[in-house]
Amino acid sequence: MNLIVVGSVGLDDVETPFGKVERALGGSAIYFSMASAFFHRPGFVGVVGTDFPAEGIRLLERHGVDLQGLEKAPGETFRWGGRYGFDLNERDTLFTHLNVFEHFRPSLPADYVNARWVFLGNIDPELQLQVLEQVSSARFVAMDTMNFWIEGKPDALRKVLGRVDALLLNDGEARQLAGVANIVTAARKITEMGPRLVVIKRGEYGALLYRDESFFYAPAFPIENVVDPTGAGDAFAGGFMGYLAQADDLSWEAVCQAVVAGSTLASFCVESFSVHRMTSLEVSAISQRAQEFRRLTHFRGLEAVRSLPG
Amino acid sequence: MNLIVVGSVGLDDVETPFGKVERALGGSAIYFSMASAFFHRPGFVGVVGTDFPAEGIRLLERHGVDLQGLEKAPGETFRWGGRYGFDLNERDTLFTHLNVFEHFRPSLPADYVNARWVFLGNIDPELQLQVLEQVSSARFVAMDTMNFWIEGKPDALRKVLGRVDALLLNDGEARQLAGVANIVTAARKITEMGPRLVVIKRGEYGALLYRDESFFYAPAFPIENVVDPTGAGDAFAGGFMGYLAQADDLSWEAVCQAVVAGSTLASFCVESFSVHRMTSLEVSAISQRAQEFRRLTHFRGLEAVRSLPG
Repeated sequence: MNLIVVGSVGLDDVETPFGKVERALGGSAIYFSMASAFFHRPGFVGVVGTDFPAEGIRLLERHGVDLQGLEKAPGETFRWGGRYGFDLNERDTLFTHLNVFEHFRPSLPADYVNARWVFLGNIDPELQLQVLEQVSSARFVAMDTMNFWIEGKPDALRKVLGRVDALLLNDGEARQLAGVANIVTAARKITEMGPRLVVIKRGEYGALLYRDESFFYAPAFPIENVVDPTGAGDAFAGGFMGYLAQADDLSWEAVCQAVVAGSTLASFCVESFSVHRMTSLEVSAISQRAQEFRRLTHFRGLEAVRSLPG
Repeated sequence: MNLIVVGSVGLDDVETPFGKVERALGGSAIYFSMASAFFHRPGFVGVVGTDFPAEGIRLLERHGVDLQGLEKAPGETFRWGGRYGFDLNERDTLFTHLNVFEHFRPSLPADYVNARWVFLGNIDPELQLQVLEQVSSARFVAMDTMNFWIEGKPDALRKVLGRVDALLLNDGEARQLAGVANIVTAARKITEMGPRLVVIKRGEYGALLYRDESFFYAPAFPIENVVDPTGAGDAFAGGFMGYLAQADDLSWEAVCQAVVAGSTLASFCVESFSVHRMTSLEVSAISQRAQEFRRLTHFRGLEAVRSLPG
């Protein structure tokens, strides 16, 4: 496999003002792989329990996700429950049951160890390190993380950061990791910790890319029917990495396009609960929305400003 | 005058984590006119007290602002004090003294009544109506408002909204006015109240333009040295209206460019306290930043996505 992801696989209970679902497919590796598959076939590293539904497996396979790295362990699948309020920007975690995920030690199939494009989903940085040690020939390794690891495992996290090419994380986490309020300063300080490329995900406000003193900004696509924001960040990462793996290109142009690919997939992800929208997504709809992204952000150069008097 | 603004003129005390100023030039008409003057000479409608510093007048005149509509009344100038916290997104108002502004009744000089481009700054909607009645030949009237008027003078506000071409307001105010959380839905609902064009200002996240079912998004320019966000929204409006008045064009292309012009001026405004950065701003710096805005947001079209198996 050329592109692999390691992350969580869960059965989620999610409630938003627009409805709720129970035991729905979730977890970073699920959202990532469903999104990335639109651009490049992903290999999947994760663990499920014996209760994981067979339809879930079939859905991933039908979607073009390679499951050689999916381990089945005795016990129950990782479970998460969350509830969103009126404006969908804030959520309460109702429960987290690690279950089989608690003793998960990622071990890559022989077919995965030569992967050139690797995404380390938001899991314990010590597990991220274990994966890193198995993919020595990777061309580009990107990772995600969260406040829980920034606070709880700062040393292990720093070690991973020192060995990856890119970090994708949200706004508040970027500020927390860098210890500064200004998001531009935060991006720069994070690159000093290791990753040359940083993407700061800002939810409904879009995503900011920083590499080598250059910035690129993709707004979130303006949609009215936001149903469930869960997984949007992982769908973004999937679109981003899938696009890069397909293009086999790390030029500035390509990484900007990859940010748009990520934003596009994230914008579809939030239109339904769980991965539902992505399962029914036509390739033509992705191309069309990516074009609408251009209209949303492109403008003609400004005419010259006037000279001030005096 | 072809372009006029009516709004507040104040002497502000502002404190941010980066310092503080006392009795500094402020108010919506000041920020607007300083910004718009880079594109088109603005006429200024407002009131000051006898304590207003002569250097303030000279600064505006030197900057190319027409002051025929500036009234001097007995008493003290409008005063506002505010303090910003660490992340600069939240501020506490420490005091507001209306002073001469309390009895202000805008009366336009003969030279202003044929203005074609009119901006109604964030003042009492009843005063905004009084101005509207004096500018019957305007081609394009834009306005700002705030939560205070949305809650306190909803009827007068609705009357103004029914008679203007554009509303510029911030994120939270748009949600409050429309009574919905989704910002896209909010924009659409606001156009149903009258203004065909809506710009939702999102502070450090940029600005969203909506007209005739089309969207345009300009991110905030990524800058590290944000010193004082006061007046950024009015500087945005000044750049926006000044650009349109100069271009004498309301095509979609022109309004998108105007949003970039507004974002550019706002990005300079926040780099210092009060209007300081705008007083020393070179025209070439504006052109350069507008070009950097292109690099920040433009990307090449995405390659085709792959077809899914199965």
